Amino acid sequence: MKRIAVDMDEVLAKYTDKVIKVLEQETGYIINIEDVSGAFLSRSLPEKYLDIVTSYPYREGFFRDLEVMEHSQEVLNHLNNDYEVYIVSSTLQHPNAPKDKLAWLNEHFPFIHFKKIVFCGDKKIIRADYLIDDHPRHLEDFQGKPILFSAFHNIHENRFKRANNWLEVEQIINSNA
Amino acid sequence: MKRIAVDMDEVLAKYTDKVIKVLEQETGYIINIEDVSGAFLSRSLPEKYLDIVTSYPYREGFFRDLEVMEHSQEVLNHLNNDYEVYIVSSTLQHPNAPKDKLAWLNEHFPFIHFKKIVFCGDKKIIRADYLIDDHPRHLEDFQGKPILFSAFHNIHENRFKRANNWLEVEQIINSNA
Repeated sequence: MKRIAVDMDEVLAKYTDKVIKVLEQETGYIINIEDVSGAFLSRSLPEKYLDIVTSYPYREGFFRDLEVMEHSQEVLNHLNNDYEVYIVSSTLQHPNAPKDKLAWLNEHFPFIHFKKIVFCGDKKIIRADYLIDDHPRHLEDFQGKPILFSAFHNIHENRFKRANNWLEVEQIINSNA
Repeated sequence: MKRIAVDMDEVLAKYTDKVIKVLEQETGYIINIEDVSGAFLSRSLPEKYLDIVTSYPYREGFFRDLEVMEHSQEVLNHLNNDYEVYIVSSTLQHPNAPKDKLAWLNEHFPFIHFKKIVFCGDKKIIRADYLIDDHPRHLEDFQGKPILFSAFHNIHENRFKRANNWLEVEQIINSNA
């Protein structure tokens, strides 16, 4: 059975949406996502706000209530019938993240067994047929078929097969099956 | 650069030693490790004590103060010069384990960058040249060279190259380099 590795933030979970919301609530500063498109927030924000935003993923509970990406639940549930679906999140720089992410996955993707979850740093240690990720750096070293999931920061990236949403992911994978 | 994946419990960290100590402190029941050798504790303990022991890894802090396996620090530090050393622990059934294990690794193996740590369930998703593990089930599906690290429960296992301690691990890996 072929194996699909799936990233979490910006692919299954709307991380940046929460960052924008919390930053506005706490400081009044409004990030316009169109202004920062094509780059990471770290290269786009004034330093004062960057420090605040960088601290968010260290907060207990920050990852617990992210919104779920459209169609990700139904498509992963389908794919899980014909493929080994693994969730692979590069998250260990933030000590509180694993517990929150486990609970979040258990709530929104209960069909994913804990044995199919991987929290790591580098993803080049991952052995799979597909990797669906919004970060080009993870796709560069991947030895299977990389799929770039569209996010505000990667709109200029053109080295990888791109999926703009989960319905496109399903089409790409089923057409390569 | 070749990649070595290294398990934690019973390989780097003396998990069962702590289980035995805490069970005796809390119940008075003494596990004689020679009585249970050749099988997992789950097949050897009276049910009453098994339930208690099974609850330990869910406790906050349980993994934080395990003792370090003899020679593991010096040997991994050597190997880390010539190999990509990853720590790969199957631990996500216990939500409090990742935070404690990250802090433990940071204390005792500070030369291992967080990007080289993997917390998972199944290890068949791991791509590496060597896997050092005390659990035959993880070694069975591994596509590199498996090394069985001796532990009380695996003394009758004979399908894999065996290392009885970390000095033997170093010999095995350097002779295959």
